Amino acid sequence: MSTTPNTQPEPLSPISRRRLLGTAGAVGAAGLVAGGAAGAYASETARSEPDPLSSLGSTAEPFHGDHQAGITTPLQAHGHLVALDLAPGADRKAAAALLRRWSKTAEELTAGRAPADDTGIALDAGPASLTVTFGFGRTFFGKVGLKDRLPEALAPLPDFSADALDPRRSNGDLWLQIGANDGLVAFHALRALQREARGAARVRWQMNGFNRTPGATSRPMTARNLMGQIDGTNNPKPTDDDFDQRVFVPAKGQPAWMAGGSYAVVRRIRMLLDSWDHLSPERQEKVIGRRKSDGAPLSGGTETTPVRLDKVNADGSLAIAGDAHVRVAAPASNQGAAMLRRPFSYHDGFREDGAPDAGLLFIAWQADPMKGFVPVQRKLDRGDGLSRFLRHEASALFAVPGGCVPGEYVGQALLEG
Amino acid sequence: MSTTPNTQPEPLSPISRRRLLGTAGAVGAAGLVAGGAAGAYASETARSEPDPLSSLGSTAEPFHGDHQAGITTPLQAHGHLVALDLAPGADRKAAAALLRRWSKTAEELTAGRAPADDTGIALDAGPASLTVTFGFGRTFFGKVGLKDRLPEALAPLPDFSADALDPRRSNGDLWLQIGANDGLVAFHALRALQREARGAARVRWQMNGFNRTPGATSRPMTARNLMGQIDGTNNPKPTDDDFDQRVFVPAKGQPAWMAGGSYAVVRRIRMLLDSWDHLSPERQEKVIGRRKSDGAPLSGGTETTPVRLDKVNADGSLAIAGDAHVRVAAPASNQGAAMLRRPFSYHDGFREDGAPDAGLLFIAWQADPMKGFVPVQRKLDRGDGLSRFLRHEASALFAVPGGCVPGEYVGQALLEG
Ligand code: HEM
Ligand code: HEM
Repeated sequence: MSTTPNTQPEPLSPISRRRLLGTAGAVGAAGLVAGGAAGAYASETARSEPDPLSSLGSTAEPFHGDHQAGITTPLQAHGHLVALDLAPGADRKAAAALLRRWSKTAEELTAGRAPADDTGIALDAGPASLTVTFGFGRTFFGKVGLKDRLPEALAPLPDFSADALDPRRSNGDLWLQIGANDGLVAFHALRALQREARGAARVRWQMNGFNRTPGATSRPMTARNLMGQIDGTNNPKPTDDDFDQRVFVPAKGQPAWMAGGSYAVVRRIRMLLDSWDHLSPERQEKVIGRRKSDGAPLSGGTETTPVRLDKVNADGSLAIAGDAHVRVAAPASNQGAAMLRRPFSYHDGFREDGAPDAGLLFIAWQADPMKGFVPVQRKLDRGDGLSRFLRHEASALFAVPGGCVPGEYVGQALLEG
Repeated sequence: MSTTPNTQPEPLSPISRRRLLGTAGAVGAAGLVAGGAAGAYASETARSEPDPLSSLGSTAEPFHGDHQAGITTPLQAHGHLVALDLAPGADRKAAAALLRRWSKTAEELTAGRAPADDTGIALDAGPASLTVTFGFGRTFFGKVGLKDRLPEALAPLPDFSADALDPRRSNGDLWLQIGANDGLVAFHALRALQREARGAARVRWQMNGFNRTPGATSRPMTARNLMGQIDGTNNPKPTDDDFDQRVFVPAKGQPAWMAGGSYAVVRRIRMLLDSWDHLSPERQEKVIGRRKSDGAPLSGGTETTPVRLDKVNADGSLAIAGDAHVRVAAPASNQGAAMLRRPFSYHDGFREDGAPDAGLLFIAWQADPMKGFVPVQRKLDRGDGLSRFLRHEASALFAVPGGCVPGEYVGQALLEG
């Protein structure tokens, strides 16, 4: 459906309306709800305009395709990131069986169907834009005897001077990104997928995140983060000529099993919100280089006006400061390096020191981390005015293979190719 | 607005439509969004049917009234529970000033307006059904020299044999319950209210919870919990003759400052989900006494059919087992004791032992805990088949005063009366 990340889904389109009907049928067929109720739901839907609230629940993101879902999917209200380590002794065959089970379950769940032996947590909810995205960490390859297939691009991320990383919440053999617009649908998928890992892999770390609920604002807007900024404006757009080239490994790229795939850099970045909130709005805007209210660059215009890094104020100062986040991070400052940022906010209550344990589960997608996250973070690490208000607390890099066609599973080209 | 707890909000009604327009106006007036954009939004709204997604964001729950909001308000998708302790030396005057600030801010936020010096986190979102509910713990009264006004009903809850309570996450001088259908709106309110407590009180504990997003299912349904059960069916209904009597302190009740108020029992109840999920669906249904798929009692009928505790199967066994949760918890088994359960689910990732740290932020509302939670939990503690799958990990009891009228603040009758 929509391929524009970071904007609210559109009002019910003909496609999602078709999906709504499809879903109601599928739900009935899978016996998720009593036949009578499902029938009533489907026929009501066909008779009248759909319930104004129901497009949120009834939207299904397709599981199959060239790319996995959850990369260009519009931001979802709930997310779970899970890294798992293979059980000692798990081999390539065991890993292949796990990925096969996982793909099958993800296919069922994202269509709004219940898998066998279901916990029932998502009963009577629609798919609610559920996506499940699978990735492989560097340590996976050695453990299953596939060192020869380890992508160069999975080289460990370099150290950055401001890193304060917790190894127990970093890296991992396998990665799941679960997103949905309903908290129970997301939790349901987490439980189902975790259960299928039993014996084959155990959870290494798990993080919960959130974004705005679709419909909380009716203006199609870029998301806000917990610092209050509009975040995601200058992301590559799927309509850009070079979008695919930046974000996805080409069909004939290297290694072959990564065709249509992408690399995900995951950083848990805590925000020092108490210090941040002490800055005046003007100071905050200077740190970013954009206006807080509407995201317009300080060089003028509206949110979508291109940033003019060379613009000078009447007093001779730069309109966008030398250490402003958008200057230091911009492709123009980094030999064209760019990535697709698709984050979740997180908030895990308060720390022992009384500060909020909150910030960004920053996820950057790119065809090659050396032409995306790495050079940009090197620059930000040294010169970003925002970095005083951030703590990078965990880090991971995963190879996320392309999508699969019906009958196949994600990662099959790696594990059986 | 709606006074039916535990059901999904209705499709856009004339009232919420009026609110939508009202909100767009208020937003423009408060300068939350640039004039042009707000104008466009308002006129579009007036011209055509509202965006099908926008009722979620535009619904405002009134702050003023006989009772505080957040008690009979439909379940919200996001919740924060916060207990605070007064700063050493804080007196009645300081507490009164805090409650006055808090009420003012809650009034602004719940109408979708930004308070002074705003963090901007909720900019361009509507009120999204935000509610803020204020309560006083037993320890509050001694600290501010109001021991003579301590309600009898705030007597410490008795110990229950299965309790494994963490004192650092239990009790507290003051309590905030924040609920909203958008995660950023809820977090925004949490930050704003916490900031206003600076110097006067500090956070003792804080918990995050969630419920289904309105619209994730289009059937008006009772909520599900993380065990997969429909939960909330046999709650007292606002349409019941004795609803007010059960839930709210009467206008001429004792103490006078609690008129229109209620008592909130808060229990953090972890679910042993791994053991639970090992039970067959049939065993799970016996433990509760209701069907998992649709919540119908095992004595027959549909979700809303009255439970027949005396029903006997053909083989002579009880249709609803002797230790079934609904039997042991029912008013009929507890001399009529009843409470309004209005919970949030919680999920804080995984524990050190690998088990999910997930369950129910159980909140029970009643005019008198001795005729609500206490006798029922005494019985459940001894005889409930469900208790093997639960751990009560934290507990608190708060006196939640009635609502206030414009110009007053919540708790004024206590602090100045
Ligand atoms: C919590 C941490 C961060 C916050 C709050 C944050 C916030 C923002 C904001 C508000 C913008 C402007 C709007 C936009 O274009 O999206 C932005 C832009 C950007 N950020 Fe960040 N950011 C964070 C971390 C990072 C990191 C770690 C990277 C990459 C290493 C990064 C890369 C970028 C890029 C490439 C842009 C677009 C610059 C342009 O082309 O104009 N950000 N960020
Ligand atoms: C995690 C813990 C709990 C779970 C999962 C749970 C679940 C349920 C479920 C599924 C029902 C049936 C549907 C309904 O009528 O709502 C129910 C009913 C009920 N529960 Fe619980 N419950 C829990 C804890 C408690 C506690 C601590 C109390 C009070 C001390 C309580 C009191 C009640 C009452 C009064 C009913 C209605 C019984 C009737 O009149 O039919 N529950 N609960």
